[in-house]
This record gives sequence, C-alpha cells and structure tokens, in this order.
Amino acid sequence: MRLFTGIVLLLLTTATVAGQGKNPGQRPNIILFLVDDMGWMDTSQPFGDSVMALNRRFHTPNMERMAKEGLLFHQAYVNPVCTPTRTTLMSGMSAARTHITNWTSITPGTPTDFKDDQLQAPRWNVSGLSTTNEPNTYFCARPLARLLKDAGYFTIHVGKAHWGSLGTSGSDPMNLGFVVNIAGASLGHPQSYYGQQNFGNMPGKTTFNAVPDLQAFYGKDTFLTEALTQKAMAAMDFPIANKKPFFLYLGHYAVHLPIQPDKRFVDKYLAAGLDATEAAYASLIEGMDKSLGDIMHYLKERGVEKNTVVVFMSDNGGLANTGRGGERNTQNLPLRAGKGSPYEGGIRVPLMVKWPGVVKPGTKTNSYVSAEDFFPTVLEIAGVPLKTAIDGVSYVPVLKNPSGVRNGRPLLFHYPNRWTANEDEGYAWSGAMRLGKWKLVYLMKQQKLELYDMEKDLAEQHDLAASHQQQLKALAKRWTLELKRRGAQMPVWKNSNKPVVWPDELVR
Amino acid sequence: MRLFTGIVLLLLTTATVAGQGKNPGQRPNIILFLVDDMGWMDTSQPFGDSVMALNRRFHTPNMERMAKEGLLFHQAYVNPVCTPTRTTLMSGMSAARTHITNWTSITPGTPTDFKDDQLQAPRWNVSGLSTTNEPNTYFCARPLARLLKDAGYFTIHVGKAHWGSLGTSGSDPMNLGFVVNIAGASLGHPQSYYGQQNFGNMPGKTTFNAVPDLQAFYGKDTFLTEALTQKAMAAMDFPIANKKPFFLYLGHYAVHLPIQPDKRFVDKYLAAGLDATEAAYASLIEGMDKSLGDIMHYLKERGVEKNTVVVFMSDNGGLANTGRGGERNTQNLPLRAGKGSPYEGGIRVPLMVKWPGVVKPGTKTNSYVSAEDFFPTVLEIAGVPLKTAIDGVSYVPVLKNPSGVRNGRPLLFHYPNRWTANEDEGYAWSGAMRLGKWKLVYLMKQQKLELYDMEKDLAEQHDLAASHQQQLKALAKRWTLELKRRGAQMPVWKNSNKPVVWPDELVR
Repeated sequence: MRLFTGIVLLLLTTATVAGQGKNPGQRPNIILFLVDDMGWMDTSQPFGDSVMALNRRFHTPNMERMAKEGLLFHQAYVNPVCTPTRTTLMSGMSAARTHITNWTSITPGTPTDFKDDQLQAPRWNVSGLSTTNEPNTYFCARPLARLLKDAGYFTIHVGKAHWGSLGTSGSDPMNLGFVVNIAGASLGHPQSYYGQQNFGNMPGKTTFNAVPDLQAFYGKDTFLTEALTQKAMAAMDFPIANKKPFFLYLGHYAVHLPIQPDKRFVDKYLAAGLDATEAAYASLIEGMDKSLGDIMHYLKERGVEKNTVVVFMSDNGGLANTGRGGERNTQNLPLRAGKGSPYEGGIRVPLMVKWPGVVKPGTKTNSYVSAEDFFPTVLEIAGVPLKTAIDGVSYVPVLKNPSGVRNGRPLLFHYPNRWTANEDEGYAWSGAMRLGKWKLVYLMKQQKLELYDMEKDLAEQHDLAASHQQQLKALAKRWTLELKRRGAQMPVWKNSNKPVVWPDELVR
Repeated sequence: MRLFTGIVLLLLTTATVAGQGKNPGQRPNIILFLVDDMGWMDTSQPFGDSVMALNRRFHTPNMERMAKEGLLFHQAYVNPVCTPTRTTLMSGMSAARTHITNWTSITPGTPTDFKDDQLQAPRWNVSGLSTTNEPNTYFCARPLARLLKDAGYFTIHVGKAHWGSLGTSGSDPMNLGFVVNIAGASLGHPQSYYGQQNFGNMPGKTTFNAVPDLQAFYGKDTFLTEALTQKAMAAMDFPIANKKPFFLYLGHYAVHLPIQPDKRFVDKYLAAGLDATEAAYASLIEGMDKSLGDIMHYLKERGVEKNTVVVFMSDNGGLANTGRGGERNTQNLPLRAGKGSPYEGGIRVPLMVKWPGVVKPGTKTNSYVSAEDFFPTVLEIAGVPLKTAIDGVSYVPVLKNPSGVRNGRPLLFHYPNRWTANEDEGYAWSGAMRLGKWKLVYLMKQQKLELYDMEKDLAEQHDLAASHQQQLKALAKRWTLELKRRGAQMPVWKNSNKPVVWPDELVR
C-alpha cells in the first residue's frame, strides 16, 4: 500500500510539473465533451448513490466505462439554460455577473423571454458573449480558448457554439480563440440531425438553425452526432502528429430538440415499451454515448490517451417542461423539474473527469462544483496562469483528492427571466443558492423563499423555510450579498417599474 | 557585381537547404492568392510587354507593388473553366487525365454541360475530386494540402473551394488536407458579396450558393472579399505564433458573378464612364487588390514576410462570353475570347511569385507554365519529396533563373464539353495545345484545326493551318500522343455514337 501511494504521488508530481508548463511538450491535452440538455438521470451510469428507475431506461456503456476510469461528481451544477452555462465556461464568470441569464436568440439584440403580465426581464445581455464589446453583450477579451491558444494549445471547436447572436464576434468560435471551428455558430439547436436532410441545409427550407459545415455528409445516412465525432477525430490529427497540446471543445447538438430518432439505436427502446418521443430521446443519448466511446478509442489508438484529460458534462438539466414524452416534470426523477428551473432537475448534471495518472480511476466525490469552475480548472491543468479575477474556483484539488469535501462556497443560479408559457416549478423568474447542505430557491413572482436540506431531501419535497427561520434569514443575507457582489440584476414589476426585492428583503 | 552574385547564390543555397526540410523551422510559408475568373488584362499591372488599353481601366496598386517585388509570368496558363484548374492545383494532374473537364455542379452526379444537338460530353468526373474514390470523381488520396499537412505544414483554406459536389469527400477542404477551412464548400460562386445580405444566408432565400461561415459579419457593411481577408489573417496567427510553416490557400470568390459593386471602390469607375456592370467589375478587382495589399502588410507586420512565398494567380480567363458590360468577346483584348474558351482570353492569366531571397525583385519571364505545375512547385518550395508521377513540372528553376526560357514542353487544354448557349470562339467542344511558339486550337464540332504563332500573333488572328501543313501535322501528331498518354476523353457524336476524332486524324 505504501508503494502504491508512492506511485500516485510520483504521478501527481509529474502532472503538476507538466501542468506548470515547464515542459511544454508534456502538457496534457484537454477535451470537453459537452452534451446539450442532458439530464442527470439520462444514463445507465448512476450519478446518485444508487441505480434508480430512469437509469434502467438508458444504455450508456461508454459513460459507465468512463466512470470506471475517472472521477464522478455526484453534485455538479450548471445554469438552468444553455447560453448562460456556455458563456460561463468560456469566461469563468457567473451568469449573475455576465448578465447573460437566458438563452440568446440567433437574431442580435433580441430578448428571448416569454411574455409576462406582471414582470419583465432586466436589460440582460441578449446578444451573448463578445470579444469586441458590441452592444448587448458581455465583453470578454480573452475567453478560455484564447488563453489556451495564446499558450500554444491547438484549440478545436466542434459542434454547438451558441455564444453570441449573428453578426457579433461571439457568433464565431474562431473569434473566441479557437484555431479550428466546425459546425459552430449562433444556433442553439440543429434544424435536423439527419445527413439525408443536409442537417437542415435545404434551399427553401433552410433556417438559421441549419448546421454549418459538414457538406461531405449531405444526402448521406449519417446522424449529426456521428458526423461531428468523425470531424472531431480528424481535427485532432494535426496537433497529435505535430506534438502540440490540444483543447477540443466537442459540443454535441444532441440531445436538444428536435428529438429525432437515431435509427442505429432506437429500435431497442421502442421494443422496451417507450413511447416514440422517449425512444427517440434515448437513441439520441446512446448516439452521444457511442461518440464518447469513439473519442476514447481514438485517443488510445493515437497513443495520447494517457496524456489527455477528458471532461464529460452537460450544459443544463434535462428537458421536463414540454416537448418530452410522458408526464411533465417526471423526466429527471428523483430530481425535481428540469431545464429552465433552479430545482435540481434543471441545474444538476452529469460530470466526470478522466485524467490518467492524476485522477484515481473509479472514484466519486460529493464535492460540489459549478459551471464557472471549469475555466480555472482547465487553465490549471494546462499550466496557464490566471491573471484576472473570475468567479470560478479550480476543482483540480478535488480531482487530486476527491474525498476531501469542502462545500463551503455559495453556488448561485440566477434566472431573472421567463422561459416558456409554463410558470410552475421555477420555470420563470427564479433563482437558487446552494451553500453547504442548504439550498434556497427564490420564486420571484410568488415572492417566496424555499429552503431545502440537500443531504436529506434530494427531491426538494420538504420546504424548511417556515421551520428554519433563522437559517433562512442568514442564508438569504449571504445570498443577497453574493448577488450584489456580482452585480446581479433582478426582474422588474411592470406596474411599479421597481425591481423585485433581493432575497434578504423577504425575510427581514 | 561579383559580390552581388555571391549574395544571391548564398541566399539560394540557404533557401534550398530550407526547402529540403533539413531545418523544419526555416521552411518557407506559402500563400496561394487565387482570384476567381480574373482575366489577364484585368489589372493596371501589365502582364504583356506594354501598357495596353484595358490596363488603364483598372487600379491594382498592390499587384503593381508585388510585380516590383517578385517575378511576373507573361505566359501563365490554366484551364478554361474553374473546377478543372482547382482540381489540377490540388492533384498536379492535367484535366485531360482527371476527367474533371468542366465545372462541377453543387448537386452530385450532375453534368453541367449545355445541351447540344450534335455532340454529347464524354462521361467525365462530374462530382469532382475525391479522397475516397466516390462515384463520378477523380480519386486523389493525397492532395497537395494533405502532403503539406503530413509534412508538418499548417494548412489553411479560406474562400472558394469548389473541388467536389455536396456529399462527397471533396466538398470539404478539411478532407483534402486543410487543417482549417473557412467558407469553402461545393459552391462555385457566392450568392451575395454583401454582409448585409449575410452572403446569401437568408432563410427563405438561402441557396447552396450562400457562403458558409462568416457569421460575425452578418448584417454588417462588410464585403465578402474583406471578410475573407480578415479571416485569413486571423487564421495565420496560430502558425506564426507557434513557429509552424503554413500554407494559406486564399481562394477569393471575387471576381466571379454576381458582379455586385464593392461600394468602397465603385464610384471612381462610374466617374470614369464605365457602365454599371463594368464599374462594379472593376470594383471587385480593386477590392481583391486591397486584400492582396492587406495580406502583404500583415506578413510584414508579423515579421514573416521574408520567409513567405506568395503566388498570385487566377483560375481561368476573364469572363467575355456573357454577363459582362460592353460587347461580347472584348473584355480581354488584345487576347481573344475569355473564360470557357481555349483561345488566350480563356486560359492565359496573371501569375506572379514573390519569394524574398530567391526570386529577384521586379523580374519577368517568358517561360510558360500551366496549372498542373503549381503542385510540384509548392512541394519543392516546401521541401516535400514527390513520390508519385504527376503531369506538372516544378517551375522553381524558372523562379531562380527567369531568363532561362525553356518552352519545349507541350501544354494541353482539353474541353470536351459545352459551357453555354454560345458556341462561338471555342466556348464549346474545344481544345488547345501550346508547344514552343506554336499553338493549335481544335474546334471539335467544326472539325477544324487552327495554328497560331504566339510570338507574332498574341491575338490569334492569323490562322496558319493552311500555310503550314507540315508543321500542323507534326504538332497534331504530338498533341494526339499527349492526349492519349493522359487518357483523355473526347465528346461523342450523337448520331453515330462515335467519339470525335483525335487531332491527328484530321490532318492525315
């Protein structure tokens, strides 16, 4: 046992030196395998403490394998909708600070909030992230990809970008520091997953959601997830051949709407009795899982597996509001609600990290992390010094010591917006803070604060606000402080033109 | 003088060593600045022996500057239409051999020949170039960009590709070996040059000619030529910062139809009395010239000018058949005809090469070169050994000694196709061979061979076929031999289903 520890320590030391960039040839490659709209339960690999009902629905053997080879996070958080998470990944800043609090429209300058009689969204950055400080954007001169590129990393973007509206610098991943961009632009979902439909590029029918590039697959029986995987692998060839460290941001369009069946996988789900929509959804999941396996296989074949960090995550919780099969708000059970909500179903996602030689295979952690932590984590892995203040905190210490849980930091989820026609379950005008075992939820229109004990009540069924007044007050005060520190904006009451009050004002 | 020669020799030696790849860090960067449909006379820089009328129409100060800094070819040849030249550049093979003899449709498997009562085209490779041997393609496993990439070059494609139809490997420049692709696909001309029109990407109006990528310029007052230039410069940043040799293939969509005015330049041409079309055309030319200047300026600013070879050329002659202002067949005067024809207006194009330290500034050459020579030339410059037989011959010796003219090799132009409704001036079913001072033209439908003395008759006005029978026979025999060696195909008579006879059969 002592010998084993010695080996681990030695590997850690090597990795640290490499990470510090003292031997640039040794710097690890980094892959972000980002799934769109994938829920915490959308996998046969449990992210909870046990196998639960929905885990039995899905087949994700490659995720299971990755869990055996890396570290699994039980409590990984992101923002409730996509653009806020994606812009946070690139900037290291909280959505409360970037003011990119909702998904961005393809059309610049256009709010995407669903109309509401009583509230209106604050003036948020509706055009997304920008490297040139354009109107209605959050200005980030040196996004993550740019920092890595400047440090000599070969930076590859494949798939969904959705960082900025058309006509802005943020619409083009190359402006954010990617050397290569394949299929990324302003669109948040694909017009079609099908090569036979040219992924939407059909004159007369083409919308801005037609997926760019990929012309070689037009008219072919190639599913979008597969096409992106093949392109990603081809794109890694150059840095591997030239011994350049690379950063691959593989942002799958899957499993976002439209829920189109991937015919390679759908039959078994239909046979298992799922309805057409849910069978198609499960096939999207399994196609994504095959992609993960193909990428892993590629890394091994090219001899770079041992020097490549792979981060698997989703950008928000699984869809449970509308558009899915089955009853609303059941798709992430036992988690409550789904995408668009600050309840766990909307913000808790699968996260795994494989880092051979550093992360101990088959480990799990209860340390919680949030979307903004990805930025400093990747920079630390790459050995790139962080020269500006950000909201995120590197979770490299967790990767090295997953059992040393220190959940003493508040995580903020701020959604002063309205997503859809549905207003139940926090899908509009809401926020949340996680601190230690506690979670506060703020339903702004209802002017209601809820308090949950996440250690005992994963499903958020027992609101402790009434019974834990002192705790509630203290947490609301801290939350307000943290929101103000980040310059957060609140929605505005239409009748009074006054902003919604801060959490602490509700419980004074 | 002896001292000067010594310096030149020393530089040549250094360059040769670098070219052989013994010091990879020193290998020169290579830029192909390829203009689409630009005629030999479409510039204020004369490519003939003197300033002629049309030279006075255009303003291309950066081309003039490049001529002062590099070597100008009086007699550079390409194929009469675009895809054959472009696929030849990538393969080193004659169009007679690739059987890509006409422009390729965006739709795979679709011939583009204009209908004809008497003749039909042979079964040519209507889907273009392929790296995977798809139907109706010419198979080239290792195109130029791939060879350069494999040798460690960072290969960048920006602009018009047009190597293969949608759904084929050739439709995607990355499949041909480019590490980066910006705006290149199956399309041969842009739907729109205007950023305000999203370069054609307007839902409901989008066709396959909408230019891919460039989303950051949507809705902006940025002309396509300018957008491509900015993207090309940004793409060079990574290899320069990482001291990687790069190959930039900047294929401007300009000056192909649609002839849309570039408002930065058009006014002076209108003021000079040109009609709207010709003023717009001249503005397309000047916008392209500005791009050349910007690229040159960029190279200097980044400190790589002295180690960068720049090749300026066009893919075929200037349009003179239809769609231009003024009378037909006058747009390339004194050259005869234009794009689509084997007369000089269709195949003779501007070519200049700047190679600091190797090419003597301000020099000119009467050595003739053809499209297939680009491939071996670039490989020699890059120090990449040529391991397969090709049709082209490196013109590096000409670059080093422009006055040592050796025009002893036959150049072939083979067009067993019909381009448009017009059949005059070789725009249908035609071919040509240049050998020494002689040029033969074969008008297949007319079953007519013409013979011109290019030293005395640049305008091809004096057919010497009747007066030089012996010469004609000998040349026709040689031409036939060369065509057969390349496996050339002839069009077929519809009534007899027999191929058109070889040139030598006409003069037996």
